[in-house]
Amino acid sequence: MAERDFIARRLAPIATSPAARGLADDAAVWTPPLGRDLVFTHDVLAAGVHYLPDDPPGDVAWKLLAVNLSDLAAMAATPAGVLLGLAGPADAAWRDAFTAGLARALDHFGVALWGGDTVGGLAAHVLGLTAIGWVEPGRALGRAGAQPGDALWVSGTIGDAGLGLAVAQARAPFDEVLLNRFRRPTPRLALGRALGGVATAGLDVSDGLLIDAQRLAAASGVALAIDLAAVPLGRPAANRDDLLARVTAGDDYELLFTAPAGVDVAALAGKTAVTRIGTVSAGAGLSLRLASTPIALPDRLGWEHG
Amino acid sequence: MAERDFIARRLAPIATSPAARGLADDAAVWTPPLGRDLVFTHDVLAAGVHYLPDDPPGDVAWKLLAVNLSDLAAMAATPAGVLLGLAGPADAAWRDAFTAGLARALDHFGVALWGGDTVGGLAAHVLGLTAIGWVEPGRALGRAGAQPGDALWVSGTIGDAGLGLAVAQARAPFDEVLLNRFRRPTPRLALGRALGGVATAGLDVSDGLLIDAQRLAAASGVALAIDLAAVPLGRPAANRDDLLARVTAGDDYELLFTAPAGVDVAALAGKTAVTRIGTVSAGAGLSLRLASTPIALPDRLGWEHG
Repeated sequence: MAERDFIARRLAPIATSPAARGLADDAAVWTPPLGRDLVFTHDVLAAGVHYLPDDPPGDVAWKLLAVNLSDLAAMAATPAGVLLGLAGPADAAWRDAFTAGLARALDHFGVALWGGDTVGGLAAHVLGLTAIGWVEPGRALGRAGAQPGDALWVSGTIGDAGLGLAVAQARAPFDEVLLNRFRRPTPRLALGRALGGVATAGLDVSDGLLIDAQRLAAASGVALAIDLAAVPLGRPAANRDDLLARVTAGDDYELLFTAPAGVDVAALAGKTAVTRIGTVSAGAGLSLRLASTPIALPDRLGWEHG
Repeated sequence: MAERDFIARRLAPIATSPAARGLADDAAVWTPPLGRDLVFTHDVLAAGVHYLPDDPPGDVAWKLLAVNLSDLAAMAATPAGVLLGLAGPADAAWRDAFTAGLARALDHFGVALWGGDTVGGLAAHVLGLTAIGWVEPGRALGRAGAQPGDALWVSGTIGDAGLGLAVAQARAPFDEVLLNRFRRPTPRLALGRALGGVATAGLDVSDGLLIDAQRLAAASGVALAIDLAAVPLGRPAANRDDLLARVTAGDDYELLFTAPAGVDVAALAGKTAVTRIGTVSAGAGLSLRLASTPIALPDRLGWEHG
């Protein structure tokens, strides 16, 4: 199937928003909600780098959308539409499964496909997605802004996606829950929206809790202290090394954020579980403890791929 | 250089717009101009498909930006910002030249780099760019809308980029002008803006004048008749086959558009050359003539890659 046929037969039927103009024009046209700021992110997933080449194509589509929506969530934004860049082999079966999965994921998150581009004839897939969302003016979250005295919070649980990667690589026994945490992350959109204008700083945990915490500390110009005993794990850790592996594994797509100590974060978060895992103080850098015992930072805090 | 270092050292210095937030956050935040519609496009350039792997990286950056801005021009939009997806080998020299070229191109067109993503460690480059622009409400152009009685126009000249590709592939003698038409196309932004609300339909000539004309005819539900003798060529054609090669070569990034017969398109276009090359009538499909002689459509009307 030629690229234009693929677009007409597989992508146009799921691009039902008026903004997409049936994927028949050179670009999408959207009337933004009045008086809002717009939020834009573009993340790339490459086969063999961000996912395993034999991961189910529908799960790859889910992850591509989810990691971009997670960036919007981290900025307290509400997603509206996406543009897809699908480059790789013109493998009809893979593309059909990918497209079907993308349609399900878009529907699940209530997001519209507005446009994009496809390229066939390449050796491996490189998938780009641009997500566009909106936020009330002045309420976008950022990594800078944490203040001494704030508390440090994280949503959901940490470390399961890393265990899921081990399952996907057949380094660990099959476990569907863990595998899904790796392949089908959940962007914390409702929590992100609730944090806008309340949290002082935030980001999503993509490369590892510790490395992302270090980045938040650096951007805010503060010191962060994390109590590893407080970090919510999906599965219990066997020992300290195991615990350190969980908090440096990445791919969690939970929100890590700071809020003034007096804010009732659990009430704000509603149905999303949130856990207080540390404190913000004047200074710089990241420090760890396990209950009352100081712990040295491990050499590797997370993924450095980008 | 790790991806994050590359972003901090090479991309952040050219991402000076406040919307980019220093490339330090998970997403860009932009306050759109009040009361405008927004226009979004995402085009991918893959090494070996859309450009030659040994093309100068600065020219590749120019082309990546230009082809996306050309899509905005075709919709009558004014560009505001872009997001970059840079995936390929972590080749520092290539990336430095690409980034320097991108900075020059962004500056030339007055467009801001808002964000994006980079991936290293891949065998070949796959470059994605999302361009965001705005248009007065209701003035976006599209491919549908041409009316019987309209005239068909094209900007600039056609066919030079195809000759430039032959130069780049060493199938023709060195010619810098032609090479630049292939490697450094000029998006017709001023013309596109002037056509908003005036032209009835339009698109940019990316895959070949004939195939793109056929697409406009199909989207508008009209018949287009083109006089090949009227098509403005950069270099004279040697014979009819040569002429047909020019109008099916593509990569011109000129605007092909329809306007009511009474509109003074040349006055609207200002400094941009425009030529009337055909007519719109009731019916379907594309027909060709050479002055008064009907010409059969060639088997191949242009590129079908997407």
